[in-house]
Amino acid sequence: MKKVIDLDVRKGMKIDDLVKQMESVGFQATHLFRGIEVIRRMREKKAKIFLTFTANMVASGLRSMFAKLCEKRAVDIIITTGGAIEHDFIRSFKPYLMGNFNLDDLELRKKGMNRIGNILVPNDRYVLLEKKIQPLLKRIYKEKKVTNPSDLARHMGKLTKDKNSFLYWAARNDIPVFSPGITDSAIGLQTYFFKQDHPDFGIDVTGDMKELADIVLNAEKTGGIILGGGISKHHAIGANIVRDGMDYAVYVTTSQPWDGSLSGARTNEAVSWGKINRKANHVTIDGDATVIFPLLISEFL
Amino acid sequence: MKKVIDLDVRKGMKIDDLVKQMESVGFQATHLFRGIEVIRRMREKKAKIFLTFTANMVASGLRSMFAKLCEKRAVDIIITTGGAIEHDFIRSFKPYLMGNFNLDDLELRKKGMNRIGNILVPNDRYVLLEKKIQPLLKRIYKEKKVTNPSDLARHMGKLTKDKNSFLYWAARNDIPVFSPGITDSAIGLQTYFFKQDHPDFGIDVTGDMKELADIVLNAEKTGGIILGGGISKHHAIGANIVRDGMDYAVYVTTSQPWDGSLSGARTNEAVSWGKINRKANHVTIDGDATVIFPLLISEFL
Amino acid sequence: MKKVIDLDVRKGMKIDDLVKQMESVGFQATHLFRGIEVIRRMREKKAKIFLTFTANMVASGLRSMFAKLCEKRAVDIIITTGGAIEHDFIRSFKPYLMGNFNLDDLELRKKGMNRIGNILVPNDRYVLLEKKIQPLLKRIYKEKKVTNPSDLARHMGKLTKDKNSFLYWAARNDIPVFSPGITDSAIGLQTYFFKQDHPDFGIDVTGDMKELADIVLNAEKTGGIILGGGISKHHAIGANIVRDGMDYAVYVTTSQPWDGSLSGARTNEAVSWGKINRKANHVTIDGDATVIFPLLISEFL
Amino acid sequence: MKKVIDLDVRKGMKIDDLVKQMESVGFQATHLFRGIEVIRRMREKKAKIFLTFTANMVASGLRSMFAKLCEKRAVDIIITTGGAIEHDFIRSFKPYLMGNFNLDDLELRKKGMNRIGNILVPNDRYVLLEKKIQPLLKRIYKEKKVTNPSDLARHMGKLTKDKNSFLYWAARNDIPVFSPGITDSAIGLQTYFFKQDHPDFGIDVTGDMKELADIVLNAEKTGGIILGGGISKHHAIGANIVRDGMDYAVYVTTSQPWDGSLSGARTNEAVSWGKINRKANHVTIDGDATVIFPLLISEFL
Repeated sequence: MKKVIDLDVRKGMKIDDLVKQMESVGFQATHLFRGIEVIRRMREKKAKIFLTFTANMVASGLRSMFAKLCEKRAVDIIITTGGAIEHDFIRSFKPYLMGNFNLDDLELRKKGMNRIGNILVPNDRYVLLEKKIQPLLKRIYKEKKVTNPSDLARHMGKLTKDKNSFLYWAARNDIPVFSPGITDSAIGLQTYFFKQDHPDFGIDVTGDMKELADIVLNAEKTGGIILGGGISKHHAIGANIVRDGMDYAVYVTTSQPWDGSLSGARTNEAVSWGKINRKANHVTIDGDATVIFPLLISEFL
Repeated sequence: MKKVIDLDVRKGMKIDDLVKQMESVGFQATHLFRGIEVIRRMREKKAKIFLTFTANMVASGLRSMFAKLCEKRAVDIIITTGGAIEHDFIRSFKPYLMGNFNLDDLELRKKGMNRIGNILVPNDRYVLLEKKIQPLLKRIYKEKKVTNPSDLARHMGKLTKDKNSFLYWAARNDIPVFSPGITDSAIGLQTYFFKQDHPDFGIDVTGDMKELADIVLNAEKTGGIILGGGISKHHAIGANIVRDGMDYAVYVTTSQPWDGSLSGARTNEAVSWGKINRKANHVTIDGDATVIFPLLISEFL
Repeated sequence: MKKVIDLDVRKGMKIDDLVKQMESVGFQATHLFRGIEVIRRMREKKAKIFLTFTANMVASGLRSMFAKLCEKRAVDIIITTGGAIEHDFIRSFKPYLMGNFNLDDLELRKKGMNRIGNILVPNDRYVLLEKKIQPLLKRIYKEKKVTNPSDLARHMGKLTKDKNSFLYWAARNDIPVFSPGITDSAIGLQTYFFKQDHPDFGIDVTGDMKELADIVLNAEKTGGIILGGGISKHHAIGANIVRDGMDYAVYVTTSQPWDGSLSGARTNEAVSWGKINRKANHVTIDGDATVIFPLLISEFL
Repeated sequence: MKKVIDLDVRKGMKIDDLVKQMESVGFQATHLFRGIEVIRRMREKKAKIFLTFTANMVASGLRSMFAKLCEKRAVDIIITTGGAIEHDFIRSFKPYLMGNFNLDDLELRKKGMNRIGNILVPNDRYVLLEKKIQPLLKRIYKEKKVTNPSDLARHMGKLTKDKNSFLYWAARNDIPVFSPGITDSAIGLQTYFFKQDHPDFGIDVTGDMKELADIVLNAEKTGGIILGGGISKHHAIGANIVRDGMDYAVYVTTSQPWDGSLSGARTNEAVSWGKINRKANHVTIDGDATVIFPLLISEFL
């Protein structure tokens, strides 16, 4: 058995020199260390790596780190929400602003500022989204009346020129962006407007399933870096059920398991389902991704 | 200003007699009381009421309460996940089992038991799902090659005979069940199998948008009873953006706001977006729905 | 294995008829049911029952329920904080007020209103405390220069005439109120003022240890109803280490275990320490005590 | 208004270069940045700095960082629990061991291993504590029959020779260690044994109050670095009520405010009480201290 260490931290220390001590610090520091180890192993074994995240994270400074992982082809599949795609796309053209958690939401409403925790999205960002998306939907529609989520995401990625956009790099590096709930977003609202005039336009969510299943079935190994919960988390682990589960999995979460929610479920619950393999290396790290993820991933950037 | 009261609880007391005291108990008891008041008002004002919930809740004993609300037409729109539809449908034919949170997931895997917190789903339930769903998909496909989530849910509801199923009552009482992320579920896996042999089968998630928008735009008032987070929560409040927000909203959540997540966001954050109206009655109740929801809703059943 | 049930809730239902169904509802409803069972057993076996709670709960409407349990001699030992004693005592003379969680704390400061979540304590309550406590300390000091926490609590209880006060009933029914951190409170501040003029006044926290140890060592069985965390929780389970742990334990908590904190630790962690017996009946219920506790305890009042 | 940035993280990056970007990352990264700023200011203004922490943190690798802050006189007052003093003292002689959160507590009990989250304390550590503490209590008793918590902590610190012990440095650098609930710990159990043979031995918790009040009243400015909740947190902010509150405060917490608990209360609630000054710089950081604290404090070590 390893001894709990006495942490040695100094001014000017490198992140690596901190996290490598964390193995024997205890509590979530230990889990963070193990998370890095699991990612190291999934990379060594050339696993196909799923990266999932939620919309709020793309509204935050983490967005460029998702982009960087796509740029470096350090991940192979993105699964995320419509909101995440929406925020990435908008921020490719106009920035979001810093606010704080205690702002008066009635005042914000009057000022046309939409709040995501301590981040603000001015209304004009959604005017911009409309201007960009409607012509794009028209072009997509001309090609094919019924599209699917990953196609739409790819088209949006090709439209951006921002190298901090994950859509930009995913589109250029052929990393599929799956988003089974894509219409639950401002993009969805835009497709509703578009469909009013083009009733035969559609988004077929079964259209991405074969591509996803093929990746899972053909991979020697699969791994997951699962940030947050919801549909992105479940879709990544759920897809792996056809191969008896992911071989490597790291969850970063702020949710708790005691309500039986998928979002709060630890990696071990997924083992019972065969969504994570019974022999997998896996760990759950409790904490906010804006702090945890940079520490978890810096070694690989 | 009201005084904090000294709660009077006695053996044999009715739920109503407890919750009516809670207004001035403090902390979440007070929020629970206010939640009941907000629901009472949305009913008095004949608001179109959205009910949203997550898959785990349908795996739990709450399922029949959602059914009851549909039976009594006490709610007008259901928005939920693919997993919720899957669990409701399966449980219409075979029960789930009680386990506990600390069971060994490796052992469960060997025994073919899938864990959801302290609830277990034996593998044969998924064999049953396959047997029921494949012929249904064939029938739907013959009618129309591309379906949409609410149609699929309605067909599933018509197939069940279990009066504790919300799908059963929603189908019979013309309550639409919207599920923008329906393919993220075992149902999705079945549609993938089906599509292998019927490549032109599809689920168009834009297909439900007009019906949803029409409800929101035509309603005098709208209200939401939002249990848990994720896509169900967001889709309900997001849909109301076209009418400047819900007029009444009650959230029940186990998530926290400090990570900027939609799941943890309180009702007031939605006011900044116009997803909840700035004049709305709204409250967030922190706690597990299996305890909170029966107390919140008993008056209306 | 039991089946998950479909909950049957109706208008006008009794609390008992709800909670008895909860065994097979899943998630925390199931834990609540088990909590009631554990309390039922500790009562049947005539265990010496520890009740612990935190200051905020005594500022809330739960206070009278703690009093009722003392009145009925349904608990044998109280362990709590200085703040809890302070709030119980003050509320015996003047009520606290309802506010809400989002009030402006700068404004409250100007108005002389101290906030505890959504409960407010006007400054004059502390003037009252001073007026009542200083003469009491003088009387105690005349008897014995160095007192101990349970003596001080007993004297305070004898001074109140409010039958919703747990100090009132504990004093009258010889239920010791242990408070190993009593000086961390407004009472502590008062003892500091008093000691300025009476330097040989003191509170010996070792003075209560023999009485507490004797109870634990002489009991056939011990049980704990542990609401919240901190020093009250630990002191109750820690005291039971000398008898190889409590025989029955119910925790109600809002804290999480992943940070290694005592407050978030589940009952099973205490088994490793011999603070809860390895053969004990025990359960942890996640949720706010203002909602959970009335349901947990109503059968016994 | 500042723009949300796109975070730039690279292999080999220094902690400083990461955290200085965090201001405009959003969510808790932003709070972490502000925490560093608040600490920087309290140091520049030569505030008397309170450091508080809980027992579990001293069982973890953070212990040496508390020691380092005492060694460098970077903090002026420690307020902590009996458990923290116990763990620091024991670890000066024998290490704790790494386990994991899911170990079987019945097995651990048989093996004589006590669990604190994912940290293990073998039983022999408590035999060692007894051997060291009993002679020390005898010596203290000969000097003065009734001691106080800070005296006891100082004596324990003088006994250790471990430079990773905060007690060691606090004793040598005249940094008082206040512990108003010290007897709630294994130390308390030892004083109970000692008192059996020395009935006039005592620990007077009012004995430290004047020293604490004098520090608070004489300081130009005060600041607090408050890790975790409970009695340590409250005693630090509560002591500052006599000077209208701390001038600078940083909380690091895993507790939530919605239950009205002191542990979960944000810094702003303390403003209503005058425990934090209405003009103070203050921030609450949500997360596990084993990850947050090294990032928060590295600049100052």
